[in-house]
Order: sequence, then structure tokens, then C-alpha cells
Amino acid sequence: MLDFEYTISTKIFFGKNKTMKLGNELNHYTKRMLLVYGGGSIKQSGIYDSVHKIIREHNITCKELSGVQPNPRISSVRNGIKLCRQNGLDFILAVGGGSVIDCAKAIAAGVPYDGDPWDLFLQGDSKIKRAIPIGTILTIAGTGSEMNGNAVITNEETAEKLAIHSDLIRPKFSILDPTNTFTVPKEQTAAGTVDIMSHIFEQYFSLTKGAFIQDRLAESMLSSCIHYGPIVMNEPENYEARANLMWTSSLALNGLLSYGKITDWATHAMEHALSAMYDVTHGVGLAIIIPHWMEYVLNDTNAYKFADYAKNVWGFTESDDMSLAKESIEKTKEFVRQLDMPTTLRDVGVNKHKLTEMAKKSVPFGDIGKFKKLNERDVLTILKNAF
Amino acid sequence: MLDFEYTISTKIFFGKNKTMKLGNELNHYTKRMLLVYGGGSIKQSGIYDSVHKIIREHNITCKELSGVQPNPRISSVRNGIKLCRQNGLDFILAVGGGSVIDCAKAIAAGVPYDGDPWDLFLQGDSKIKRAIPIGTILTIAGTGSEMNGNAVITNEETAEKLAIHSDLIRPKFSILDPTNTFTVPKEQTAAGTVDIMSHIFEQYFSLTKGAFIQDRLAESMLSSCIHYGPIVMNEPENYEARANLMWTSSLALNGLLSYGKITDWATHAMEHALSAMYDVTHGVGLAIIIPHWMEYVLNDTNAYKFADYAKNVWGFTESDDMSLAKESIEKTKEFVRQLDMPTTLRDVGVNKHKLTEMAKKSVPFGDIGKFKKLNERDVLTILKNAF
Repeated sequence: MLDFEYTISTKIFFGKNKTMKLGNELNHYTKRMLLVYGGGSIKQSGIYDSVHKIIREHNITCKELSGVQPNPRISSVRNGIKLCRQNGLDFILAVGGGSVIDCAKAIAAGVPYDGDPWDLFLQGDSKIKRAIPIGTILTIAGTGSEMNGNAVITNEETAEKLAIHSDLIRPKFSILDPTNTFTVPKEQTAAGTVDIMSHIFEQYFSLTKGAFIQDRLAESMLSSCIHYGPIVMNEPENYEARANLMWTSSLALNGLLSYGKITDWATHAMEHALSAMYDVTHGVGLAIIIPHWMEYVLNDTNAYKFADYAKNVWGFTESDDMSLAKESIEKTKEFVRQLDMPTTLRDVGVNKHKLTEMAKKSVPFGDIGKFKKLNERDVLTILKNAF
Repeated sequence: MLDFEYTISTKIFFGKNKTMKLGNELNHYTKRMLLVYGGGSIKQSGIYDSVHKIIREHNITCKELSGVQPNPRISSVRNGIKLCRQNGLDFILAVGGGSVIDCAKAIAAGVPYDGDPWDLFLQGDSKIKRAIPIGTILTIAGTGSEMNGNAVITNEETAEKLAIHSDLIRPKFSILDPTNTFTVPKEQTAAGTVDIMSHIFEQYFSLTKGAFIQDRLAESMLSSCIHYGPIVMNEPENYEARANLMWTSSLALNGLLSYGKITDWATHAMEHALSAMYDVTHGVGLAIIIPHWMEYVLNDTNAYKFADYAKNVWGFTESDDMSLAKESIEKTKEFVRQLDMPTTLRDVGVNKHKLTEMAKKSVPFGDIGKFKKLNERDVLTILKNAF
């Protein structure tokens, strides 16, 4: 296990009707806030009205940035920054999923930054010196963004999708009401489950020795996804399933699995290139890429990690590590199919001639991956295998 | 899963030589502090000198409360409060294990309280309105106190051992250097491992339905104890083992396993009565009581929980729930023996004629336990079985 420093400061309100806690929390932070959300779904579900009622009751001035898209754009971020500066807003409430929350985080870091916010993505996290506080009401399980300091934004002009990481943009509070995810459509639900699993894989598949407790916790979380993922597909209003997926999602990417380990993040780099070029849902892209990444990186040296995954998550009994590893990859593929997800890049409309460009965009700052280092050629092979 | 509110705000510095972070942390909080510790072990190990060097370098005035005993006494708490008030101290650094940290917490709550600190234990947690901040340097894995808001104190005059719980006494930071536990003697090491497991059991054995992720996380932590517990007995300087036990210990009682569930705490109530009367090491008392508690509470309705424990922690394969349950209890007993721990109350010098009084002291505020409610007569039977 490696040394680490650990603070997970986000306050979580978990359960039915926890939106009622919003007023008290907002009171700590603001009288002038920005509300960030996506399309119309929060209006249909009634969350929008509930939030506005609370804002009015607490005499808070509120401006809105709506229409934040999946794979949120730097142009939305720029608009949000302008709204905050022009109206003297000092707090952001994000109501939505990962895209909305990530957009809010980038705005939060951008407001006090003297320059274009895309600089923060290009020039490294140390550029982020301050941020205005944010809170979230989560409406889809998957991102983990509600409890961490990460944000991923797409630059639509350059078709780049890049991330920032800073404790300064970690939400002060997040409201997690599983009933808010009851209306998430099937495809998004499946994508969310795979997204959670992908976050776990990126941290689980590591060559760090002796991080036993982190690895066992990761397997617990994978088990939760595997157990409840198919259930919510058939029973979207199953509270137990939605609650377990929602809480697993937050725990999977809040630091609990990564502190003390070297983590990978190669499949995310590839998926970010894919969805920057094709605007594919993040979890869908991951579902296509992950099994092919697994097959490509598996070798005699690292097969023991896949064997752990086979035994402790899928319940396979003793066999040699390589056989177990291959079985676990087959199981992963089968699981993705069980969630009715696309399994090839062709399925989501990718043009074969774009794979070279996609591979190039996957390695914007050099080789990717720590479990197995991948260069542009490796990535191209994986993408071709996934086509 | 039940609704919950979650904040785990303690900042953790985990790894070798993390004591070097102390100065920077102290700078945030104090120029006049109280240092609390137990016997001479921190002087032998050199931690005492390291801490004083840092305190001097940062020009911090420091008074000391030393000699805090296992099962810390309310008299030590009173002395600490007096020291803080007389010298205008506004921060407490606890260097030691659970006893030292719990004593520091009780002092922290007692300093701003107008009255005798034992009131806080008798009259309920709502009496705690303020506390001065504390930090810790942990020297033994087991307590979990380094990352939570609980403290257990013994009143030596009345032979009572009671607890307080408040977020106000949660440490602001804790320094966890596994090498600081290399010199913990065998008996204390074993007691620490059982202490961690007991905390997990109290939260795992619950009738709350659908807290799947919490239950799987609990099993991960139990696996860590079972894997590394015997290793550290033979290899006290095995860093990987000490590190995993130390981090498991903090995670096991910081709220991660309890939020969203009803928890039990009956074996702790019994053990507190035992160690208040006989000054037995907490983990030793638990090692004796737990298997007998398991045997007594097991019934057809709750056997499924023990069956989960048998399958997911001990790796038993399918059988009927009751058979699995019994096998898991046998395994638990065997594990305690493997750690060379006493297995009966007689082994630790308990007088049979005192069991009635011990049972009475186990239920100071009425029936105990939520997994299975126990009255004074139930407790007496368990204690007799454990004799």
C-alpha cells in the first residue's frame, strides 16, 4: 500500500425526500446563486419546482444556466462564468448527472480565474487556486462526480475532452435521493451501471502490491453493480436497487478505492476521445472499450489480478490464473450484453477511418495507463478490436 | 437501506513518516495545546521526542496529561479539563490508542461544559454543545476512535463504563503511520484485531433489509482482519499487514458501515460492564463474549445473516443457512484461538458470583441489542455460557 492523504469532505444527504435539506445548506453559503441543469427532465419530475420553492423561501437570488448537454461543452462553462461574474453569484447548485455537475465544477474554478477556462484543462490542475463553492442534487447514478473533485469537459471546437482534478471543486454537499433516479431511461441506467464499474476497474487493476483492503472494497462495489444492474433494468422503481447503485456510485470514485494505489485510467482516456468525436454516452463508450482493453492488457504477469476478479466478484473457483482471467473477461462481456448495450464501435456509428485520429486523441499528453502502459499504436489496436 | 446523513471530515495522513505533517496541521488550530498520552511507550519509540521537536519548532506552548490508562478514567478527564482551563489551552493532541484518544475527546467536550464531565455520559449526547478541536497520532490499530466521534470512559468510583457520541469530538486530523504499530506487543495486537472485527460485527449483524453495499463492504473488512490478523502475530514488522489492519480499523468505525443501517452494540455493552469491573483489555473481553453472543442470538429468522458471513467471509459453499451459520461461529472461535487469546471469563479472572452484577451493569439504560434484543436475563445466560 502506498502512502496517502485522505479527506472526503462532501456532506451527503441520502434518502427519500432529502431535498428538504437544501434550504438549510444553501443558507450556509449564499444569497446569490447559479442553478445549473440540463434538459427538461428535472421540470417533468418536479425537482425543478421543489428547488425553486426552497430558493424563494430562503430569499435567495437565482440565475439559471440550462441546457447543459451530455459531454458538457466549454462554451456552456464560459456562459456560466459570465452569468456568475455579471450577477455577482457566489455559489452554484448543480441539479442533474455527471455532465451538469462537471460543468458546474468547471464554472466554479473558472469564475475566479483570470483567463479562458480551457487553460485550466490544458495547463494542469495547479492552475486552480480558488473556486466558488458548489452543491449538487444528483439525478442519475454513475458519475461519482457528486463526491469528488474531478470534472471532464469537451472543447467542441477542437474535439478534445479533458479533465481537471482539485479538492477545491469537490461539492460541499450532495443530495442523493434514489427516487430521483426512478425515471432514468433504460439506456442511461445501463450506461450508469457500466460507468460505476469502469471507475472501479480503473482503480482495481493496479500493480500496487499489498493494497488488500482497497482491492476487497473494490470487489464489494463491483458485486453491488453486478447484483443490482440487471434488476433496475426490469424494475426501474426498485428502491433498494436504485439506492445501492447510487451509493456505490459515490463511494466508487470518492477516493476510497484509489488512496494508497497507483490507478490506471486508460479506458477513460480512450472513451473521452471517442465521445469527444462522436458524442456517445460515456457509459456506452466504456461498455464497448473495457472488454477489449482487458483482452489486450492481460498477460502472464498481471493475470493474478484478473483471477482475483474472477474469484471474488464472479465466484469462480480455483483454476490457473490465466484461465480464470479469461473467464472473467467473458463474464464482463456477457454482463454488458445482459444490459442491452452496444458492444462494438460500429454499433454507435463510428467510421473505421476515424480510428487513427481517435487513437491520437486518446494520448494527448503521451502514453496512457499504469496497469499496462499504452502508446498510440496499442490504443489503435484496441480500437480496431472494438470496431 | 435506511436514509442517512454522512460526513467523515477527519483528514487522514497515512504512511511512513507522516508525523512530519503535524506542524502544518497544528498551525491551523493552536498556539497553546494539551498533549495527552499513556505510559512510556511513546517515549521508548521516539514519537514523543519527534512531537516535541515539532511543537518547539512551531513555538507552541504545550502542557501534558500523561499516564492515561487502558479503560480511561473520568478522573483523568477531569485532570485534563483542569489543565486546559488553567492554562488557556485550545487544542488537544492525543498520541496513543483508543484509550488516549477517547480521554482526549472527553476532555475536549468537557472544557466548555459547565459542570462535571460525567454528566455528559449520564445525560445523553445532546448535552454536548461545543468542544475544543483535537488531533491524533495513532499508535495501535483497533479502536477506530481516530476517525469518529465516539468516546468511552470508565467511572472508577461507580464501576460504570459509558459512551458519548458527537461529531463535535471527531478528530480534525489523524496521523496513521503503520510503523508506529510495529512495537505493539502480541497480546495487544491480537486484541486490536478482534476489536476491529467486533466493530464490524456490531454493524454487520443487522436486520435492516437491502443495505447490500454496506454488508459487502463489511465482509471486505472482515476478510482483511482474517487475512492479516495471524500474519502480524508472527511478523510484527510486516508493513503490509500493519498498514491494512490500521486502515481497516479506521474504515470499520467511521460510519461507512453503519450509515443506512440499524446497528447492534450488545457485545460492546456487555464488554464495557466486564472491563469496568475487571479492567480487562477491551479486545480480549470481546474475543470471549462474541462467539457466545453469536450462539445465543442465532435463530431460524436471522440465520441467513450468519450464512452470508460464512459464505462471503469464510468461503463456505452452499448448504442450508443454519448449518452455514453454525460453521461460521465455529470458525470465529477457531480464529480467536489462533490469535492465542483467552476464551472464557474464567481465564481473565472473573469471579462467577459477580456475573449477576455484570449482567445488571450491561443494561444500564434498559434492554440492549437491535439484531436481537437482550434483557438482563439474556445477558446473564450469555455471560454464564462464556464463563
